[in-house]
Amino acid sequence: EAATPPAPVAAPPAAPVLQPKTGEPVAPVEAPKVADQAMVELGKKLFFDPRLSKSGFISCNSCHNLSMGGSDNLKSSIGHKWKQGPINSPTVLNSSMNLAQFWDGRAKDLKEQAGGPIANPGEMGFTHDLAVTVLQSIPAYVDEFKKVFQADTIDIDKVTTAIAAFEETLVTPNARFDKWLRGDDAAITKEELAGYELFKSSGCTACHNGVALGGNSFQKMGAVEPYKTKNPASGRSAVTKDDADRFKFKVPTLRNVELTYPYFHDAGAATLSKAVEVMGQIQLGKTFTVEENANIVAFLKSLTGDQPKFELPQLPPSSDTTPLPQPFGK
Amino acid sequence: EAATPPAPVAAPPAAPVLQPKTGEPVAPVEAPKVADQAMVELGKKLFFDPRLSKSGFISCNSCHNLSMGGSDNLKSSIGHKWKQGPINSPTVLNSSMNLAQFWDGRAKDLKEQAGGPIANPGEMGFTHDLAVTVLQSIPAYVDEFKKVFQADTIDIDKVTTAIAAFEETLVTPNARFDKWLRGDDAAITKEELAGYELFKSSGCTACHNGVALGGNSFQKMGAVEPYKTKNPASGRSAVTKDDADRFKFKVPTLRNVELTYPYFHDAGAATLSKAVEVMGQIQLGKTFTVEENANIVAFLKSLTGDQPKFELPQLPPSSDTTPLPQPFGK
Ligand code: HEC
Ligand code: HEC
Ligand code: HEC
Ligand code: HEC
Ligand SMILES: [Ca+2]
Ligand SMILES: [Ca+2]
Repeated sequence: EAATPPAPVAAPPAAPVLQPKTGEPVAPVEAPKVADQAMVELGKKLFFDPRLSKSGFISCNSCHNLSMGGSDNLKSSIGHKWKQGPINSPTVLNSSMNLAQFWDGRAKDLKEQAGGPIANPGEMGFTHDLAVTVLQSIPAYVDEFKKVFQADTIDIDKVTTAIAAFEETLVTPNARFDKWLRGDDAAITKEELAGYELFKSSGCTACHNGVALGGNSFQKMGAVEPYKTKNPASGRSAVTKDDADRFKFKVPTLRNVELTYPYFHDAGAATLSKAVEVMGQIQLGKTFTVEENANIVAFLKSLTGDQPKFELPQLPPSSDTTPLPQPFGK
Repeated sequence: EAATPPAPVAAPPAAPVLQPKTGEPVAPVEAPKVADQAMVELGKKLFFDPRLSKSGFISCNSCHNLSMGGSDNLKSSIGHKWKQGPINSPTVLNSSMNLAQFWDGRAKDLKEQAGGPIANPGEMGFTHDLAVTVLQSIPAYVDEFKKVFQADTIDIDKVTTAIAAFEETLVTPNARFDKWLRGDDAAITKEELAGYELFKSSGCTACHNGVALGGNSFQKMGAVEPYKTKNPASGRSAVTKDDADRFKFKVPTLRNVELTYPYFHDAGAATLSKAVEVMGQIQLGKTFTVEENANIVAFLKSLTGDQPKFELPQLPPSSDTTPLPQPFGK
């Protein structure tokens, strides 16, 4: 009698094929592509180096703290000699996606932006020349610039190029919402999904769309109802000199917005719930219920992505000829 | 004719057995043993968290920057509201080896020390109660303290315990000089070796000895000749109230001294070369030649060890109930 043939071995269940969502006004963040790792490493050191400031105390990371979502979580920044800044510090995370830099877009890109704070009396309080003199006095920096730029001397152009290259790596992929966009339906909760649906149906995506959910246009703060603030910033019109641009600000990214409190250019909203309430009212003329507000907030928190992951950089020591920091006195 | 037997396969050369140096007044740094990794991770976050300060801007790492040898490389520190500190900030690297903390030894250990700066009006400008209230309002901290301490509430004792546990990991093994001590004769140069010999024969090791080359006694600044300074610090006598202790300071470690410029409690020496010159004169009544000075400096630079290596910590976000930082105003 012939043996019964062995039961077929069950194939391991195929990994479910994810069906990416289509037709959404929001797209997932891609992991950064690093073209020149040595340049990025140099820029990272510069970003963390307080010797780019007059005091020797303030670095880019002081106000764009990468342990805290790339901002300082203060209403307005603390600059050289504790000077109170005029405006809330935006995150550097995903800032490479912005159509321009600063709330009013006055710098066209990250490289142009990076020169600003070093020489700003209320931020790092230094000059480009002095910053370059400091770097040029530090042998390990001279070597590193030489390796990266094939040039013997450091200049501010190379400094800002390297900082910008580092900043371009500061993108935050893998937010739970992005996993959902890529087809993993379990990645967000029912409340978060309801929040997203409301975010779209209410009209938030008119301004907060694309990969960064913002960063790609200047919009009036107070499109429907005026926004009340004591902050004197006039917005985009300061750049264009066009009165029609008064009180237009670059729409901020909502990526990692959970981490970048307080909100708005004047930090007028301490909490995300307050920011959503204000946006509904003054941009769309809508008043959300408590539950609606909570759902939108929940959705916004699903936008927190992987934070930049790297070792604390080690800065090369000054040499005997490095100009001394001047924290006090004039 | 019989084939000649194959030549015996040469055994790989045995790794040379290193003969550790014996009878030296200096011993190598051992890698830290971490008893409780979760506690260390919590302490690391707290060390980097500016929310332990009134302003929300100053963390332990502001003045003990682990990108810069664990100090701020300023003559005197910048504290809350840019207040000028009274004394040079010592490194936190290898500070666990100190017989006591602070220049005058007024804190018996790292745990006792860590409570100081939080409540010091000129440093972090906060109170222990407010710092704890802030932490208690941050859900991820509450969870982490619970996991580490098996307790539902945070208190300052737990905060300083965790910070101290992190600081205990901040030791710097594998300096080239330590490799030499362990028997690798090629690890240091002829000049560095000559500098070490002179360091011993001149009498520096009377005070700078042991694993840390310092940190284990209080000694008169100006043992042979008085030290001239405008800094009002009276040293150890502030603690003992004994006039015989006037102008005694804790001998600082010379580990990583290349990174911890400027030197002395009053930062009176900007360079290592100047510090060595002054030490020779006022502690030993010796004037070194230019070459001798250079050799000692070279030796001191061979004491730079592996800097703590870890990922930039990510801090848990504040919640809607977290008290706001108060950088400005009273
Ligand atoms: C003293 C605080 C402070 C320091 C230091 C500082 N920034 Fe800023 N940064 C700000 C503030 C405030 C703004 C917004 C200014 C505005 O829009 O008018 C800003 C804006 C930016 C932006 C634009 C982001 C956006 O979305 O528009 C980038 C990028 C940036 N900073 C990077 C840097 C770099 C790089 C450094 C160091 C070279 C640095 N910052 C130093 C406070 C600071
Ligand atoms: C007409 C354009 C527009 C619409 C519609 C709009 N926003 Fe905004 N949003 C902005 C602008 C511009 C800002 C920055 C304003 C400022 O800071 O002065 C902003 C800021 C925000 C912020 C604060 C971000 C930060 O980092 O400071 C949040 C949160 C936000 N919007 C959420 C929403 C939500 C939710 C909706 C829908 C209910 C919405 N927005 C609708 C333009 C818009
Ligand atoms: C505003 C600057 C500043 C801040 C912030 C600060 N420190 Fe200090 N730290 C100093 C100064 C200055 C001293 C020396 C004071 C003295 O000896 O009288 C010191 C001393 C120490 C010492 C003693 C080292 C030794 O060799 O004696 C340790 C350890 C230390 N700090 C750790 C910390 C920790 C932990 C924190 C945060 C909770 C912190 N510091 C915050 C400036 C600061
Ligand atoms: C009698 C004890 C004694 C002797 C001998 C001595 N030192 Fe010191 N050393 C100290 C003390 C105490 C300090 C801190 C003094 C202060 O800051 O006011 C110090 C500080 C230093 C510093 C600065 C460290 C820092 O981080 O600020 C260096 C470098 C140094 N010594 C090197 C030497 C050398 C090299 C010799 C020998 C030529 C030497 N010392 C001999 C006690 C001594
Ligand atoms: Ca903000
Ligand atoms: Ca020092």
